[in-house]
Amino acid sequence: MSQFRISALETRDVRFPLEQGAGSDAVHSGAEYAFATTLLACDKKLFGTGIVLTLGTGNELVCQAIELLGKELVGREIDELMAEFGVVAQRLAQHPQLRWLGPHKGVVHLALASLTNACFDLWAKSRHVPLWRLLLDLSPQEIIDLLDLSYLEDVLTRNEAETILREHMGSRRKRQGILDTGYPGYDTSVGWFQYEDARVKELARQALERGFRAFKLKVGSRDGQRDVRRAFMLRELAGADALVMLDANQQWTLPTALKTCEMLRAMSPFFIEEPTHADDIRAHRTLAEAIQPIPIALGEHVPNRVAFKNFMQAKAVQIVQADCTRVAGISEFLVVSLLARKFGLKVVPHVGDMGQIHQHLVLFNHIAMGHGAVFLECIPHLRPHFLNPALVENGVYVTPQAPGCSTELKGIRPKT
Amino acid sequence: MSQFRISALETRDVRFPLEQGAGSDAVHSGAEYAFATTLLACDKKLFGTGIVLTLGTGNELVCQAIELLGKELVGREIDELMAEFGVVAQRLAQHPQLRWLGPHKGVVHLALASLTNACFDLWAKSRHVPLWRLLLDLSPQEIIDLLDLSYLEDVLTRNEAETILREHMGSRRKRQGILDTGYPGYDTSVGWFQYEDARVKELARQALERGFRAFKLKVGSRDGQRDVRRAFMLRELAGADALVMLDANQQWTLPTALKTCEMLRAMSPFFIEEPTHADDIRAHRTLAEAIQPIPIALGEHVPNRVAFKNFMQAKAVQIVQADCTRVAGISEFLVVSLLARKFGLKVVPHVGDMGQIHQHLVLFNHIAMGHGAVFLECIPHLRPHFLNPALVENGVYVTPQAPGCSTELKGIRPKT
Repeated sequence: MSQFRISALETRDVRFPLEQGAGSDAVHSGAEYAFATTLLACDKKLFGTGIVLTLGTGNELVCQAIELLGKELVGREIDELMAEFGVVAQRLAQHPQLRWLGPHKGVVHLALASLTNACFDLWAKSRHVPLWRLLLDLSPQEIIDLLDLSYLEDVLTRNEAETILREHMGSRRKRQGILDTGYPGYDTSVGWFQYEDARVKELARQALERGFRAFKLKVGSRDGQRDVRRAFMLRELAGADALVMLDANQQWTLPTALKTCEMLRAMSPFFIEEPTHADDIRAHRTLAEAIQPIPIALGEHVPNRVAFKNFMQAKAVQIVQADCTRVAGISEFLVVSLLARKFGLKVVPHVGDMGQIHQHLVLFNHIAMGHGAVFLECIPHLRPHFLNPALVENGVYVTPQAPGCSTELKGIRPKT
Repeated sequence: MSQFRISALETRDVRFPLEQGAGSDAVHSGAEYAFATTLLACDKKLFGTGIVLTLGTGNELVCQAIELLGKELVGREIDELMAEFGVVAQRLAQHPQLRWLGPHKGVVHLALASLTNACFDLWAKSRHVPLWRLLLDLSPQEIIDLLDLSYLEDVLTRNEAETILREHMGSRRKRQGILDTGYPGYDTSVGWFQYEDARVKELARQALERGFRAFKLKVGSRDGQRDVRRAFMLRELAGADALVMLDANQQWTLPTALKTCEMLRAMSPFFIEEPTHADDIRAHRTLAEAIQPIPIALGEHVPNRVAFKNFMQAKAVQIVQADCTRVAGISEFLVVSLLARKFGLKVVPHVGDMGQIHQHLVLFNHIAMGHGAVFLECIPHLRPHFLNPALVENGVYVTPQAPGCSTELKGIRPKT
């Protein structure tokens, strides 16, 4: 077997200014999109790229954390490393000093995510396959060996996790058609918070013409009034059959959320996203009970599998928006997907990666775990910067074929 | 009124290597203690020092985050700043770009804590009073204006918080005797995880001789067997009347915690600290129910008031170990203390500050809120490095009298 040894670890603080108002929501303004980027060099031709999203300022902190945390990866052969990646990921998460800065959240956890994503990219490239193919070709046991399942013993043992994968082996063929048909994307770019009504209307019209039938609107105004008005406006424009999702970016208090969601009931939102503070499990449970059957979607700020477990146990989340650039990369994303399967919940990833990695993971979740919610957010802003940008045609994600995780950025490669 | 304007913000990455084995627990080894230190310069004589603890590696990341986050404080007059500090703290926590790196947790939240603690130190020094005196001299409304109470609307409104303080005004006199008598410390230094049995025994004997009647033992071995043996050993040595606290530093799984705590019941631990993963509210609730009346203590890794609220609502914590060097400094510590009062829970701070700031806050909590648990951990390692080290005589904390928060470090002052 060929040997692919990691010869160097480098980082890049890559930033992309956005046009005025784009990327804005109830809490984020004046944002850049930035990637704290890990480069794992192997030989002259082969390297792995890992990314996590930040909003500009502070991206350099994540890059430094990557370099502090990732030292032990240099010198490792990629197949050997990935054969015990669950153990390695756990050890890195428990770094005796850096752990204090999280633990398992914030800058150090973002760093672990970027490192992890780089390892998977290098691994897939070394085998000349796209990530979805790499994962589908692994045995259930090999998948489980990629994962840190600690602190889940009360709801998902290693055996149970492996069983979920085994049970879906026989029926994979039935679900593999998706590789040919693709699956729908939904458009977030119509409804940024700072866009005026007229602009939202115009963008929604354009998206309808491009084939989209699902739209997201940023809400989260202090008293909810503006939110209600704009939500009904978008519903009228998009039609009764379209899916309209509302994203409050944590800006409502629980009392405001309860009141506003009651007013929104009549426009039938497909889900309400991040209605209040991301750490407030109890508040989300209270709201979920009050507004059912409207589901609550969240996850972009839920940092790890243990926090997700708590949300699921409390019935505080119905649509799991895990993000492999927030949790500890592709491997913890798979853990959360297994947890969601156990709890019977849909996974619709948040796309801090602009969908580049998640377009693979949605395919794997569907084929290997039988996840039914095949649907992915679509944010085209940074598409020109990727070597192999995600392709969405007529509102449908086209299966990526290039080797790797689709994370390689144009002109960003190791110096060594 | 005098004007004290912040003329510059500087940071210091201050590290103190520890002797072999000291500071070790089930997860931390080879640690340094380090402070990500904020210096707020005012004039040639006056400056504020804010500290948060880290374990060495990565301390520089917190220092950088302090500088990114704290820019807006430069130029502010300290009385004016503190008159609206609740609003300022909320704005900093919601920084449009840096927020993504938390939110409200990890490196950016530690940075906010260090900044906040520096503001309070400068403020107290500008008035020539120790922190406890500064706080006791403020009106209930002035205290509330220091706090960010957002996302607590469902359990503690601004009015309710102010009422807690008002209701305790009349009875303050009864509790002020503590300023003369002091209150007991407890000794953590006897039972570090890597210490051999013989060393634990010898240190416990010495602590008994110095007047301590409360001891903490680090536990958290994989199967719990070593923990049980050492806990009974310390109980025998310390006597039936002593308080023996057990700290697992999150190392037990829920199944192991359930089993081990059952075996520990017969040695009557005063509390079990951090039995499992710090984010696992549900697991702590399950354990708390199973082992009652033994209380669960936690908080050193609970990052903010919203997470604390959830622990309290779930009855997953009985002794609240908030730490003003983990939550967003002195002001969020006071918020958590008010929450605990509302829920009828004791606050026994974790001392990431080595007790320097918390020795003041325990006095305030007792006198101004009627908190009854007057008790504070005592870690003397870094005492020689403080200008005004906490004084513990015969196991009793002596009320600090020097102006400020007792955070000033020898030889660490602004260059500007």
